[in-house]
Amino acid sequence: MARIDFPEEVKRLIQNLKRLPGVGPKSAERIAVWLLGQSSEFSEELATAIKESGEGIRACGICGFFESKATGCALCADGGRDSAVLCVVEQPTDVLPLERTGAFKGAYHCLGGRIAPLENIGPEDLRIDALVARLSEGEVSELILAVGSDVEGEATANYLAELMRRSFPELEVSRLAQGLPAGGGLENADELTLYRALDGRRRV
Amino acid sequence: MARIDFPEEVKRLIQNLKRLPGVGPKSAERIAVWLLGQSSEFSEELATAIKESGEGIRACGICGFFESKATGCALCADGGRDSAVLCVVEQPTDVLPLERTGAFKGAYHCLGGRIAPLENIGPEDLRIDALVARLSEGEVSELILAVGSDVEGEATANYLAELMRRSFPELEVSRLAQGLPAGGGLENADELTLYRALDGRRRV
Repeated sequence: MARIDFPEEVKRLIQNLKRLPGVGPKSAERIAVWLLGQSSEFSEELATAIKESGEGIRACGICGFFESKATGCALCADGGRDSAVLCVVEQPTDVLPLERTGAFKGAYHCLGGRIAPLENIGPEDLRIDALVARLSEGEVSELILAVGSDVEGEATANYLAELMRRSFPELEVSRLAQGLPAGGGLENADELTLYRALDGRRRV
Repeated sequence: MARIDFPEEVKRLIQNLKRLPGVGPKSAERIAVWLLGQSSEFSEELATAIKESGEGIRACGICGFFESKATGCALCADGGRDSAVLCVVEQPTDVLPLERTGAFKGAYHCLGGRIAPLENIGPEDLRIDALVARLSEGEVSELILAVGSDVEGEATANYLAELMRRSFPELEVSRLAQGLPAGGGLENADELTLYRALDGRRRV
């Protein structure tokens, strides 16, 4: 009796899928089975989308948002933004949710990650040099640190706030408010969220 | 101020990733950001793996396992298997875990899914005709229904058992045992598992 294994093509597919973030061995197998059940047009389309974005997209050298080699950076090309306010986010994908609020008209700076010692990501791995270069031009007067409220976000915000105090003491630096999420009752809030909501209470 | 959106390439990538099973809008964005941060060699490799398996792999017409157009079906090519015992599984990926147990030396039949009315999957969507064709050859004397123990697995097993009673009354049909998983204490078992473990108790 032969030792049964998947054909080479399937093994290679599963190996590659397993490397994607949030995709474990089981999900990789499930995705592979599903992909193999689709028409070869879909495989072709997905493969092309991956290949073309891999070749055609880079991080914008200024703001770090997705820059298409063909059409450039949509953020930097937008002349209607208030260049005095700069909003610092972790990932380029954080820009769209902020844009959807309609509450921010300034410019963005994507760090490309956050300080995470456990994952070996330090300040030198983020686009902080590019941020300092932008601030050195002297146009920005307010910096909003729109990083996450988890441990890594805190570390990143603290690091940046300290850097700004030393290098750009005139700059107004703020962080996003923390507190109860919209529509959430007190019974659903964890202790830390409640603590921060209390701590940051606003006079009405 | 312009309406900011991702470049076309990124939008198409996210759209395509979202269609994968178990990948929601958030994971699709996360995977896209991660992919765009990798070398273009990795995108190329993943794209090639998807394309090649899409083109080069099909379900074997007999057993339903992955068949490479280049090298054929490893299961059907294996002459050392006991063709009197046929093990019916849902997906081709279920074959490898069963093989690893070393407890089964017979042949397999992959249904390509399970009966799931909520997902609009009926018996006619599964490889049941091919199963009936194999059984009609008269070589198989025992059929093991190795489908899942969830509702859909139950429905599939019941349907097949009934079909066999009518069409192949001589055939010995069994299902995988249900009960406590290995290493699991009673305190971790849910009610239904315990019920089935009691119901299927074996004299020692």
